[in-house]
Amino acid sequence: MSTPFTGSREHFPGIGSIPYEGAGSDNPLAFKHYDAARTIGTRTMREHLRFAVCYWHSFCNAGHDPFGPGTRAFGWDRGETALARAEAKLDAAFEFFTKLDVPYYCFHDVDLAPDADDIGEYRDNLAHMVAAAKQRQQATGVKLLWGTANLFSHPRYMNGAATNPDFAVVARAAVQVKAALDATVELGGENYVFWGGREGYASLLNTDMGRELEHFARFLTMARDYGRSIGFTGNFLIEPKPMEPMKHQYDFDSATVAGFLQRHGLAGDFKLNIEANHATLSGHTFEHDLQVASDHGLLGSIDANRGNPQNGWDTDQFPTDLYDTVGAMLVVLRQGGLAPGGLNFDAKVRRESIEAEDLFEAHIGGMDAFARGLEVAHALLADSPLERWRAERYASFDDGPGKAFAEGGLDLAALAAKSGELGEPQRRSGRQERYENLLNQYLVR
Amino acid sequence: MSTPFTGSREHFPGIGSIPYEGAGSDNPLAFKHYDAARTIGTRTMREHLRFAVCYWHSFCNAGHDPFGPGTRAFGWDRGETALARAEAKLDAAFEFFTKLDVPYYCFHDVDLAPDADDIGEYRDNLAHMVAAAKQRQQATGVKLLWGTANLFSHPRYMNGAATNPDFAVVARAAVQVKAALDATVELGGENYVFWGGREGYASLLNTDMGRELEHFARFLTMARDYGRSIGFTGNFLIEPKPMEPMKHQYDFDSATVAGFLQRHGLAGDFKLNIEANHATLSGHTFEHDLQVASDHGLLGSIDANRGNPQNGWDTDQFPTDLYDTVGAMLVVLRQGGLAPGGLNFDAKVRRESIEAEDLFEAHIGGMDAFARGLEVAHALLADSPLERWRAERYASFDDGPGKAFAEGGLDLAALAAKSGELGEPQRRSGRQERYENLLNQYLVR
Amino acid sequence: MSTPFTGSREHFPGIGSIPYEGAGSDNPLAFKHYDAARTIGTRTMREHLRFAVCYWHSFCNAGHDPFGPGTRAFGWDRGETALARAEAKLDAAFEFFTKLDVPYYCFHDVDLAPDADDIGEYRDNLAHMVAAAKQRQQATGVKLLWGTANLFSHPRYMNGAATNPDFAVVARAAVQVKAALDATVELGGENYVFWGGREGYASLLNTDMGRELEHFARFLTMARDYGRSIGFTGNFLIEPKPMEPMKHQYDFDSATVAGFLQRHGLAGDFKLNIEANHATLSGHTFEHDLQVASDHGLLGSIDANRGNPQNGWDTDQFPTDLYDTVGAMLVVLRQGGLAPGGLNFDAKVRRESIEAEDLFEAHIGGMDAFARGLEVAHALLADSPLERWRAERYASFDDGPGKAFAEGGLDLAALAAKSGELGEPQRRSGRQERYENLLNQYLVR
Amino acid sequence: MSTPFTGSREHFPGIGSIPYEGAGSDNPLAFKHYDAARTIGTRTMREHLRFAVCYWHSFCNAGHDPFGPGTRAFGWDRGETALARAEAKLDAAFEFFTKLDVPYYCFHDVDLAPDADDIGEYRDNLAHMVAAAKQRQQATGVKLLWGTANLFSHPRYMNGAATNPDFAVVARAAVQVKAALDATVELGGENYVFWGGREGYASLLNTDMGRELEHFARFLTMARDYGRSIGFTGNFLIEPKPMEPMKHQYDFDSATVAGFLQRHGLAGDFKLNIEANHATLSGHTFEHDLQVASDHGLLGSIDANRGNPQNGWDTDQFPTDLYDTVGAMLVVLRQGGLAPGGLNFDAKVRRESIEAEDLFEAHIGGMDAFARGLEVAHALLADSPLERWRAERYASFDDGPGKAFAEGGLDLAALAAKSGELGEPQRRSGRQERYENLLNQYLVR
Repeated sequence: MSTPFTGSREHFPGIGSIPYEGAGSDNPLAFKHYDAARTIGTRTMREHLRFAVCYWHSFCNAGHDPFGPGTRAFGWDRGETALARAEAKLDAAFEFFTKLDVPYYCFHDVDLAPDADDIGEYRDNLAHMVAAAKQRQQATGVKLLWGTANLFSHPRYMNGAATNPDFAVVARAAVQVKAALDATVELGGENYVFWGGREGYASLLNTDMGRELEHFARFLTMARDYGRSIGFTGNFLIEPKPMEPMKHQYDFDSATVAGFLQRHGLAGDFKLNIEANHATLSGHTFEHDLQVASDHGLLGSIDANRGNPQNGWDTDQFPTDLYDTVGAMLVVLRQGGLAPGGLNFDAKVRRESIEAEDLFEAHIGGMDAFARGLEVAHALLADSPLERWRAERYASFDDGPGKAFAEGGLDLAALAAKSGELGEPQRRSGRQERYENLLNQYLVR
Repeated sequence: MSTPFTGSREHFPGIGSIPYEGAGSDNPLAFKHYDAARTIGTRTMREHLRFAVCYWHSFCNAGHDPFGPGTRAFGWDRGETALARAEAKLDAAFEFFTKLDVPYYCFHDVDLAPDADDIGEYRDNLAHMVAAAKQRQQATGVKLLWGTANLFSHPRYMNGAATNPDFAVVARAAVQVKAALDATVELGGENYVFWGGREGYASLLNTDMGRELEHFARFLTMARDYGRSIGFTGNFLIEPKPMEPMKHQYDFDSATVAGFLQRHGLAGDFKLNIEANHATLSGHTFEHDLQVASDHGLLGSIDANRGNPQNGWDTDQFPTDLYDTVGAMLVVLRQGGLAPGGLNFDAKVRRESIEAEDLFEAHIGGMDAFARGLEVAHALLADSPLERWRAERYASFDDGPGKAFAEGGLDLAALAAKSGELGEPQRRSGRQERYENLLNQYLVR
Repeated sequence: MSTPFTGSREHFPGIGSIPYEGAGSDNPLAFKHYDAARTIGTRTMREHLRFAVCYWHSFCNAGHDPFGPGTRAFGWDRGETALARAEAKLDAAFEFFTKLDVPYYCFHDVDLAPDADDIGEYRDNLAHMVAAAKQRQQATGVKLLWGTANLFSHPRYMNGAATNPDFAVVARAAVQVKAALDATVELGGENYVFWGGREGYASLLNTDMGRELEHFARFLTMARDYGRSIGFTGNFLIEPKPMEPMKHQYDFDSATVAGFLQRHGLAGDFKLNIEANHATLSGHTFEHDLQVASDHGLLGSIDANRGNPQNGWDTDQFPTDLYDTVGAMLVVLRQGGLAPGGLNFDAKVRRESIEAEDLFEAHIGGMDAFARGLEVAHALLADSPLERWRAERYASFDDGPGKAFAEGGLDLAALAAKSGELGEPQRRSGRQERYENLLNQYLVR
Repeated sequence: MSTPFTGSREHFPGIGSIPYEGAGSDNPLAFKHYDAARTIGTRTMREHLRFAVCYWHSFCNAGHDPFGPGTRAFGWDRGETALARAEAKLDAAFEFFTKLDVPYYCFHDVDLAPDADDIGEYRDNLAHMVAAAKQRQQATGVKLLWGTANLFSHPRYMNGAATNPDFAVVARAAVQVKAALDATVELGGENYVFWGGREGYASLLNTDMGRELEHFARFLTMARDYGRSIGFTGNFLIEPKPMEPMKHQYDFDSATVAGFLQRHGLAGDFKLNIEANHATLSGHTFEHDLQVASDHGLLGSIDANRGNPQNGWDTDQFPTDLYDTVGAMLVVLRQGGLAPGGLNFDAKVRRESIEAEDLFEAHIGGMDAFARGLEVAHALLADSPLERWRAERYASFDDGPGKAFAEGGLDLAALAAKSGELGEPQRRSGRQERYENLLNQYLVR
């Protein structure tokens, strides 16, 4: 029986609630831009941004990398049993959520509960911790943005989970997905995520990619049907990533996954969870992959982090580049918001950042960066000439033969004939530098 | 009135037909592996490989790059009028095709004929040169693999052709596509290609990507309808490229284009023309993008070249990496061949390679590399354990519950229940190193 | 005989001098941050930033790229002779410099004057245009930041200039370098630049890299000696770039060139001209390569532009990323300034940007971005805890055994013995997130 | 007291010595090209290639990656104490070396012996295992190519070892380097390696790069002096790597380290250990970084592996690309061999490769790839026109004014004057395609 969250255990002593202090403050444990109650347009910042803390990086990951073990000593990682340690971790997490005052969190099954090869033990552990989490949610008002199953860490998944060449592994993956869906529904999770960390190949030589992708679609279809059968009404989300850990991952980017969902009749239930660092690894800007998803009606949620432009792996740094946050919020505001998705900090403090303050400051910096991004994007859309400039560029398609073309009212010969009437087109500057200057002016003003 | 090709003009004096001399020869103007008449499996090398020479790099491109003008003086680039120069170039090209003994060539409208802003003059020039080309085709037996329209060089297309924000430019593009389709049909071209060199964006700030893509689909649909109306029965081909000249190009890679074609109902008429260097610029191996296309039933043709792994632009080098050619031919052989597509050398000799011999040797090297790739791929498939190894990896899906899963006969709960029966999956080595060693053994043997 | 610059020719009608209007203005032809007379620390912005306009991109480059010709029609590109067109271009350039009110410009020999294969004609053209430029300099007060010779465009340099495998080409390169040095001295140029655009290799197979580098050092030594003999007292500058146009360029990055200069005894006369886009192509941040140069005492000047993180070629965009400009100005301020070097906009408006306003707005945006970078960097150094934090990180080397170590007063055994005394080191957080938040707070405040 | 190696423990049952079976064999546990006794030129393959097995990847690394733990169960990883497990591992390693018949191995201090925070325990463990290893070396004839200290895994080194901002960490690093040097000398190691895995920065914001590099030079100097004082006569080796685990690593590439060694007076005792995958991560080909090192007289040893061109992290795959091995052996043969360095397989089987056979097959494939590379490189140098072609390219510098230039006998004015005499240079083709074809002809013949 787990202990209800009371707020009495101090895993982060000396850190209270985080105030908004404005741009002039020198307190590193204060927000400079994020003010949950402040209204931007018709919504509060809290409603716009729907921040979530991720469980794995913040409470499970001690900082290991391929060249060394973790560096952080978690004060909560004590207790005689795995379950006791999991409960202490849960208390620390909810204390963190509460002090930071974020509305959401996200987890994998085996972040929350101890893993086990024995299926019964795995399920029991998860059920126990789900009950404990439910109590903390009720006590604090923090909600679950999404749940997911970790199908990439255990060695059994080394050759893939749903796309494993061995059926027994596919079946084992179903155990976890079923349990994680059950947990997500029990905890009122608003979305359910698939990140296909091992769904891909290490070598094309030993791989039947077409067959594996058919299995993948089959598996997702079954998960969708099961989720709907137990009352899950939220979005299923695919999280694209082009590579790492595999040489190639099947959910390469937004466009790839959009095509896959459509081909397999899944686009009605599935949307995309776009991660900044995954977008850049696939050769796109963060904003690009968001826009592609949004244009397909598939932008469901965001993993808010960033990569390092010189490093070719997933660095999962906290998002602090204001160009990224402005670009992201432009897409989100243009599509009318992100709900029921949110902005999940799938980010980790650097291996060298080992203090409790670092975890707070990293989240504060990320939240502030998105708050500033929201302010600037809103001002660009509401106050600046940006939208008018863009509309004017395309005005020739708003009526006349341009509109007829866009609506399918011309055939190729008729279209070519129009050119004879119109004469050599006048060249029009793209004005890229003017747009870029405008962005900088709104960023700093 | 153009002069029929007679073979009497010697643009490449001293170079006769190219013999097969076997691996031991030291003659740089001889094939070591390619022997058109040699049978591999049930086809000759000529039938398998369906080589094409591209007109633009080999006869129009004097070697300019962003930092300097061309370096090559083309002996045929003489004559008082643009049409006279175009005819001399055509003669040189057919002399080259004939001496190299390739079955196919490819062109853009404005490679073959002088461009003109005036639509009538543009059409007249093209019609004149198409007639001249038809004569040379008949005289030599060389055929047209595909034609296309250049919608990326002229400044009017700087902001896109079909995706230009100005309707007048879209209409002007239709003039060229209609003319190039007419030319392709007149010359018996077996395919028609769209490479969207300016279909993309330089900056997302000034771009409505969703609207541009709708226009793109509309334009392709109109071109398809027109082509079918004039009797074109071959494949329309989209050639993916992720970037360059634009910051982002819409036809990013195979998966992106496959999704786009499907979304817009074009997959029945359109296939993909995969270029090696474009695949690597998009973060994939050449073989990967071929396999993705093939798995979608969309692998239509190949632009055979290669990039430089350290250089982030399209180097369009001649294909000489045997790992690439083996990988490509594995995909081609597994799908039963490439016809009506072919292997087009969309490749250019280096700017520093300024002799006629360089052009011959470059093509000879590329043809030999694919001939060796064909030999090795065929041996891997026919003689080695490769296919058996791969089949055994997936054997658990060939019957029993694995087959039931693959065919949709299980739901998630039933699948999870199977795992309980099967127990913890046995781990099976992926054996990547063994596959890689096998490839090397067949490459060199 | 050239005409002195009078300001009466209006190549940019309707554009007057550029005012400082503050962050709130909506006039795209106004500075928001740059105010030449404003004092930051002990210098004016004009003294700190030492902006230069480059002649080639702004007045010679009509926007060609590998896939199409130029798009811009230069109003000044008229006149019956090459020299008349060159003079009109010179007038336009000085009108632009004056209206923008930049203190400096930079040129290549063949930007300024018509090139010619005939050496006498080449020299005469250059001498004529140098005289003309001198008059405009005197009339306007605009000065020459640096001159250089273009040793990469002419086909004779396709295999290299100083590193060409053919001695005759090396000798021909000397003609241009001698002439360009003469011109630079005549015009009071404060620096002389070598960008080795073809000094590298296309293929290592046909290249003797060691021999070519020996020739390169020899050539630079001769140029240094000649320059000093004619009274040039400024810095010789090498501009690193890792690749493009060559597959590999010898002046790869700051560290490579620093080693080369030192190895060949050139570090006393040569410094580095660091270009942002070249730094990022070599796998570094702009700030990194600046810092490396500065730490070697070799940071001489800056080519201020930026690349596109997703595009692997030199996009030479105008610098607008404020993180880059803050980072650059931190290095510059810490080393006490950049004089006699400057900030040269080696940047080009996009091919789609074809209006005169675009050229002005691009420069205005770049100047503003560096002005804001200067403000923020100065505030970080003067007002924020940044320098104190950094100093405290290294405090253990300021005295005691740490200082003894740094000064060479310990041997390895003594150092190891110290560890026994000190015990297991306490782990100290690197606090990266706190530093990053601080930067954002100063950027926006 | 450790047990002498007897060969009686069967950690790899069923695998005997590895025969040379020739290219036609289908036995995956047989060499196809490598025949130790076969003479190429004046040396045997064994003497040319000097293969080494690395201890860490092959015997310590169970296959963990950032997304999951290890997958391999090592049969030898048993025993009640850490030392007993270390001894069993040592036996397994020597059984492997012996069966594979490689002449060398390499290790880090904490691969061989259990690590400990307590300095005395650390030293005792290492001394114990060194004695055990010495017995196995004597019993088998296997020798130590190089030793090194692991200064990157322990959390104390998270901010660097010799470049740590805290003196106490620098001192602790000296403990390990001193001990590892002692061990290397005791075991007759022919080289000693520094790989600076944490010597670099995560963020330039909190880093004083110049100060850290001064400390680095100081530390290396002390290590050099200590090594020489205890009788170490081999090469000290620096292993360049550009990034990972750090955002930037100081030993970026060959050119960077060559400059650093020269600047700090270390080039007489230090050489470079070039790793293929590190070279490609730094934007070079493997062959390029080898050639740069060799041209500086600094190519000391090779870490033979490869990366994945689409993946931006260190994949450490076994070397199987024959273009790489030919390129590497061209450099090695041209400099007259690699001794006292060798070819160390710093490579790991894929995480999915979990069988003992995989480890053998991976090494066999790598050895075969280098054996074939040696055959081809030797044939290119001895039998093909390669060297003659290259010499002819540079012939203009072999006598006359070209020679005078190369030897410093001309000044710039005299050089320019020569151009007037020589006239416009004749353009000479670089013939890259011919060279590339030649390589392919020798690769397959």
